[in-house]
Amino acid sequence: MAAVTFKAVSHKGKGGLIVESQTHGFKIVMDEPENLGGTNQGMNPLEGLLVSFGSCLVIVGAAFAKAQGIDLQDLWIETEGNLDTDGFLRGIEGVRPGFQDVHFTIHIKSNSPEAKLHEFQKFMESRCPVTDTLRNGTRINANTLVIER
Amino acid sequence: MAAVTFKAVSHKGKGGLIVESQTHGFKIVMDEPENLGGTNQGMNPLEGLLVSFGSCLVIVGAAFAKAQGIDLQDLWIETEGNLDTDGFLRGIEGVRPGFQDVHFTIHIKSNSPEAKLHEFQKFMESRCPVTDTLRNGTRINANTLVIER
Repeated sequence: MAAVTFKAVSHKGKGGLIVESQTHGFKIVMDEPENLGGTNQGMNPLEGLLVSFGSCLVIVGAAFAKAQGIDLQDLWIETEGNLDTDGFLRGIEGVRPGFQDVHFTIHIKSNSPEAKLHEFQKFMESRCPVTDTLRNGTRINANTLVIER
Repeated sequence: MAAVTFKAVSHKGKGGLIVESQTHGFKIVMDEPENLGGTNQGMNPLEGLLVSFGSCLVIVGAAFAKAQGIDLQDLWIETEGNLDTDGFLRGIEGVRPGFQDVHFTIHIKSNSPEAKLHEFQKFMESRCPVTDTLRNGTRINANTLVIER
């Protein structure tokens, strides 16, 4: 058991739907595009989720290629998520607000044999923390609502 | 049915575990901290997930406060996720690589009655696309491995 905890804070910006977040010294602004009610000052949270997903897979690939005997000259991943806005914008019953599905395409530049690269793809998916979290969900505990007067 | 699709591309950087991602014109660099094998040039993907989660809740709160009759003077959310690195670093059987649980605390500055704010908290959770995706998981389809020679 080697427990680690990650933390972040997300704060409503001035006006509109802008959100400023911080995590261990790094900042990011998120917003919605204009067609979803924002002013397009940053990626939106669902795009943030895709970026985290693709980045996690790339990191697993980069971290483990050598140990898995894979020649890794380049690696990039296209991610795509589909959603029905009737869920979150309109609250229509039976329509989930979240992603209905997520797709990804892995591009590997490598001289390793094709079969070995397919095995490595499976390895990457099985070890990737974000893939596991998105595929299987996680327990979400809302400990507290703090009302500031 | 109002289908929308979000897309991103994540590309391995030069050396180390750095990843450069793009989504509709916005860029973000992710990396791992030094104790997880990186050079700490950006938040890591699990922190990216938390930031997306907190930002999504803030956006739902900001977007719907007025329609829900809530006085919203300020809103910020602390998020925290726990993980056992034996899963993704060592591949120990029975240890999931992803988040074991996620916690969050909502801070609302408001003059609305307490009971109404607790209702609003439930509303935010029920409508938030990232909360739903993390809590219930989603279908992940790995369509393709493209081998670039």
